[in-house]
Amino acid sequence: MQRFEGLDMHRKKNGSARLGRLCTDHGVIDTPVFMPVGTQATVKACPPDRLKELGVSIFLCNSYHLHLRPGVKVIRGAGGLHRFTSWDRALLTDSGGYQVFSLAGLTRISDEGVAFRSHIDGSYHFFTPTGSIRLQQDLGADIIMAFDQCVGYPATPHQERIAAERSLRWAQECKNAFNSQRRQMLFGIVQGGMQEDLRSESAKRLSDMEFDGYAIGGLSVGEPKPVMYEMIEATVPHLPSQKPRYLMGVGSPDCVLEAVGRGVDMFDCVMPTRNARNASLLTLQGRLNIRREEFTYDFSPLDPECGCYTCRNFSRAYLRHLFKADEILGAELATIHNIYFMLELMGKIRQAIRLGSFIEFSKEFLARWENQ
Amino acid sequence: MQRFEGLDMHRKKNGSARLGRLCTDHGVIDTPVFMPVGTQATVKACPPDRLKELGVSIFLCNSYHLHLRPGVKVIRGAGGLHRFTSWDRALLTDSGGYQVFSLAGLTRISDEGVAFRSHIDGSYHFFTPTGSIRLQQDLGADIIMAFDQCVGYPATPHQERIAAERSLRWAQECKNAFNSQRRQMLFGIVQGGMQEDLRSESAKRLSDMEFDGYAIGGLSVGEPKPVMYEMIEATVPHLPSQKPRYLMGVGSPDCVLEAVGRGVDMFDCVMPTRNARNASLLTLQGRLNIRREEFTYDFSPLDPECGCYTCRNFSRAYLRHLFKADEILGAELATIHNIYFMLELMGKIRQAIRLGSFIEFSKEFLARWENQ
Repeated sequence: MQRFEGLDMHRKKNGSARLGRLCTDHGVIDTPVFMPVGTQATVKACPPDRLKELGVSIFLCNSYHLHLRPGVKVIRGAGGLHRFTSWDRALLTDSGGYQVFSLAGLTRISDEGVAFRSHIDGSYHFFTPTGSIRLQQDLGADIIMAFDQCVGYPATPHQERIAAERSLRWAQECKNAFNSQRRQMLFGIVQGGMQEDLRSESAKRLSDMEFDGYAIGGLSVGEPKPVMYEMIEATVPHLPSQKPRYLMGVGSPDCVLEAVGRGVDMFDCVMPTRNARNASLLTLQGRLNIRREEFTYDFSPLDPECGCYTCRNFSRAYLRHLFKADEILGAELATIHNIYFMLELMGKIRQAIRLGSFIEFSKEFLARWENQ
Repeated sequence: MQRFEGLDMHRKKNGSARLGRLCTDHGVIDTPVFMPVGTQATVKACPPDRLKELGVSIFLCNSYHLHLRPGVKVIRGAGGLHRFTSWDRALLTDSGGYQVFSLAGLTRISDEGVAFRSHIDGSYHFFTPTGSIRLQQDLGADIIMAFDQCVGYPATPHQERIAAERSLRWAQECKNAFNSQRRQMLFGIVQGGMQEDLRSESAKRLSDMEFDGYAIGGLSVGEPKPVMYEMIEATVPHLPSQKPRYLMGVGSPDCVLEAVGRGVDMFDCVMPTRNARNASLLTLQGRLNIRREEFTYDFSPLDPECGCYTCRNFSRAYLRHLFKADEILGAELATIHNIYFMLELMGKIRQAIRLGSFIEFSKEFLARWENQ
């Protein structure tokens, strides 16, 4: 079954940016798409009906967190992640690989998998490629991810090669373990550190395994942005054009634009929601910290150009008050705004591609954003 | 102008319970009514559009808190509390008296007013009856309260007498300071500790001052419930029947029923919202702590009889997970449920009064509630 349709159009004016439609059992996703992160089966500070109003078509949950709490037995008992969360649109789970390396304690890695201790209670766990796929198939998201090894930055070329090779072997194990009857899509993940050759080679070899989609992992881990863009350029041309391309963990507006221009279709990032809870709000002029003194008597909306619930109803002074007074409402209103901002941006990007003006749109946006 | 209409009906079957309609510039309030508390200009963990969906017709803000943060200058600058909070239904502010005695440090009371230090930053403040009225008129709520002195429990008869006398003098000062052009209503507050005679006398003397409504203050401060009911009985008959009666700080379902049966029209309490944030949820069978182990695999709704957003969409297992994982969504979903529960209860109370079955309804409810 053909579940993704990618449409290159106006190549001269759009660069490699493309429109796409990804069909899931829980709705169609227009790409390029931004996916908010719902780590523990909830997008923090934003109820699901609000996410729907915002137009969110898919969000991401972390297998590592769900495995530890509440545990897959609970979610399977509920009838899967959609019913557990009361979310009838699409969901994606990651494989747990990234969190095992970034959050867990006493990690021990071998070719079989990764042994680690829970960051919550220190309990012992062992993740394998096959185990991660079984876990994710039980969780029941529409899109699930291969289990990979992510190296940090900086890493030696040797470390990057080891991790890339292991990720390719594990990708094949995941593919073998995957039961395609369950109507989920399995995405492979390209690793390769900061080496262009290794990225290109990994992309080619992964493409041969015929996944439902391809993610670019191990980026936005501390490297300079130009390096990240080079790695994307070294990867995308070697991925099949008729499959979606997903840049993992990337979501700042400038990086999204740069990556869309290089042919990426999907993004996820905690930035908009995490920043929101820290009073950092996205506007077309850049980030704005609403706790600042200067907003005490500022009765204008957060962003006069924005049409979100927060900007239509509340002033900067009120938002500042909520944050200063540690009120939960501050987190929710800020989260609504930041998600809305990202979805608006993605809508504008899709519209620009449709009209053949993506390169122009991107230049203008970045000029405004970077001159904040 | 007649702003309140109280309707005694089916006296034999309703006791002193009565229906009423209180007209404000921000909508009509059907009584008996429960008012959620929005201490710092927000009902904690519940956005205003959600409050509207729930059917909240009025909520209460605390002058003491707003005076300290963000300060009246900010709220006046915003155009008043309604515009600051983006709430176009009715609002009530208390006078600050209760918080000064319960929260502030180094309180020094005299006939002129109360000197205290902020619980936030230790800064020095002085509240007087006239000052409190000016503050509340600037805040701009639909209903504002006289500044009174609340004694704790237990207190000596002498202390109770002193406070009651002072509260009566201050009530007159508040009345004198009140500018009735501003289309607000000013309510007096009956004190008198736990002495029936003193309560009756205070009610009579306060009634002579002709307030727009009458509150019963200084109850639910630690006394046994039967004592509170006696104090209500000693007060209500001496208040004018054509004015609303408001029992301050009371809001547990059993106390609300007992007080409605004794002729009270209005209630406020932090209990439903505060309990919600502590995972304590209201059901017809009593309170339920959703963190309990037994709910781990309980995929039924919190309360199968409830029609709120939370109960229509989420399971006990999911709510338990949210609380165990410290997710903000847990607080919001629980708050929605508890407010809905209280408003449903008030709706059932009004319906029972209308049908002449309040005494019967009350008995049945209390039997269920107390046998939890």
